[in-house]
Amino acid sequence: MTTAVTARAHTNIALVKYWGKADATLMLPQTSSLSLTLDQFYTDTTVAFDPTLTADQVTVNQVRLDEHASRKVRHVLDLVRTQADRPTFARVSSTNHVPMAAGLASSASAFAALAGAASRAAGLDLSSRDLSRLARRGSGSATRSIFGGFVEWHAGHDDASSYAEPLVESVTWPVAMVALVLDAHRKKVSSRQGMQTSVATSPYYPAWKQVVAHDLAAIKPAILDQDFTTVGEILETNAMRMHALTLSADPAYSYFNGATLQAMQTVRDLRAAGVACYYTLDAGPNLKIFCQVADLPAITARFRQDLGAEQVIVAHPGPGLSWR
Amino acid sequence: MTTAVTARAHTNIALVKYWGKADATLMLPQTSSLSLTLDQFYTDTTVAFDPTLTADQVTVNQVRLDEHASRKVRHVLDLVRTQADRPTFARVSSTNHVPMAAGLASSASAFAALAGAASRAAGLDLSSRDLSRLARRGSGSATRSIFGGFVEWHAGHDDASSYAEPLVESVTWPVAMVALVLDAHRKKVSSRQGMQTSVATSPYYPAWKQVVAHDLAAIKPAILDQDFTTVGEILETNAMRMHALTLSADPAYSYFNGATLQAMQTVRDLRAAGVACYYTLDAGPNLKIFCQVADLPAITARFRQDLGAEQVIVAHPGPGLSWR
Repeated sequence: MTTAVTARAHTNIALVKYWGKADATLMLPQTSSLSLTLDQFYTDTTVAFDPTLTADQVTVNQVRLDEHASRKVRHVLDLVRTQADRPTFARVSSTNHVPMAAGLASSASAFAALAGAASRAAGLDLSSRDLSRLARRGSGSATRSIFGGFVEWHAGHDDASSYAEPLVESVTWPVAMVALVLDAHRKKVSSRQGMQTSVATSPYYPAWKQVVAHDLAAIKPAILDQDFTTVGEILETNAMRMHALTLSADPAYSYFNGATLQAMQTVRDLRAAGVACYYTLDAGPNLKIFCQVADLPAITARFRQDLGAEQVIVAHPGPGLSWR
Repeated sequence: MTTAVTARAHTNIALVKYWGKADATLMLPQTSSLSLTLDQFYTDTTVAFDPTLTADQVTVNQVRLDEHASRKVRHVLDLVRTQADRPTFARVSSTNHVPMAAGLASSASAFAALAGAASRAAGLDLSSRDLSRLARRGSGSATRSIFGGFVEWHAGHDDASSYAEPLVESVTWPVAMVALVLDAHRKKVSSRQGMQTSVATSPYYPAWKQVVAHDLAAIKPAILDQDFTTVGEILETNAMRMHALTLSADPAYSYFNGATLQAMQTVRDLRAAGVACYYTLDAGPNLKIFCQVADLPAITARFRQDLGAEQVIVAHPGPGLSWR
């Protein structure tokens, strides 16, 4: 009854962004979204349900989380307990192999791994779709980290219809993502808070929903065709249109800093010099650059010169959830 | 017949922005806008029509402009010649007392002064409204610089209906504008080009037009009531929603740099510390800070400490067009 199960899930970068909840309790998004799972960054999570425990014990990177910090983990455990009809507390131990400084969302890999480990530890054998629905309840972007490669999260309209689905799970296309560490500090406005302000106050939010619908319809065939330029152009304009929601919110805010703006210019300079690459960024100042593997040497050399070697991290398309 | 006439016009800062043309030939804007004319920055322009000339001669700050650089000036002169039925070439000499580095639009004061000097030199006695229509043909923002104080430019739908009108010409309200010089370089994307890209490609442009209509309806009574907080909040969100159009354009661009983002944060910090002030910015990185005169010492001290004394320029509400 106290079998420990370990699962591994990788983080992902949205190419068409998720920016806004339609239902904060069920974690239903305002729009569908599409991401690329990355190989370099992942979370290993071990869960054991133990009848001798008097409360859930949650440890992340060897640090025990308090009641408040562990509330989202316990929420997912509660959902598993309800489904498995097993009212036992659990021991959860999680290790993030995601450089926090890189501005990569560790919550995506963390809640996907938790869904995988907790459900199996409780004796459930969920489908990938149901795992993505469960991961969603912990963190929206975790919905997509159940799968490898290019993944679409269908917004849906209720708990059953809001899940992720792979578009191309085994990626043979030689593309990569270069993550730049431009600011290692914690963001001032969380993505949760930022989304909420954008939905509630940006006069551009209704048009953003149309942008996403348009971009999704255009990027999916481009990914299937391995049309790098089209995919790159869509992901860059989509990211900027998401960030335009932060400027247009009330109060206005921005995730950019001076280094962000400079790195964006460097990407444009590289393009002008014939090195095809496109940037995206999320709720933080760190740029992620989508490129073709053949161009990695030129791109990393340029940014390592500007920023230092440790600030430039290369990732490739990564796999979906696994158990070990 | 060669009487020289000199006119002086001051620059202005839009509190509700003009960002997009509806008709590039007639210079009709997509939306109305509202500005504050400033006392510190102005252009003196002297015009003389001279039958001995074989071409227009245009000199700005002692530098003779070539055919290309003088084309907008000659366009305004042509309109004056047509109205005055006087087919004589003119000598135009203009001196800008606008620090180019401050990111203040010298074209606003320049074309307002040109309209005033050229029309009188040609023997026309135009109304203020017709002067603002004439200035508009040289530069959109010049439409508003015919008047002092708080000025509204009515978008209109044709040449006759697109003109400026003062809301409060003699300002007794003790407010000021602090201009920060954050980057003295010439902007990469001209406002003309930036507007055009925003209108043509930003999916948020239709909503921007509604933002302007809403902000104008709200800011006018607030100015009349001298309601500083409401005016400040509107001008800051309006500026950011204009800049969201640059991020959401295709290709995306931004007028911000690192110093812009830092200065925005300093304004928010000052507000949090009880010093009421609000920023706006146009097609460049330099912030302009709207404040009450009583708070000028605290605000200028803070920015002079950050940026150096010469980078912080104080202006007050200024007068309309005059002849000398």
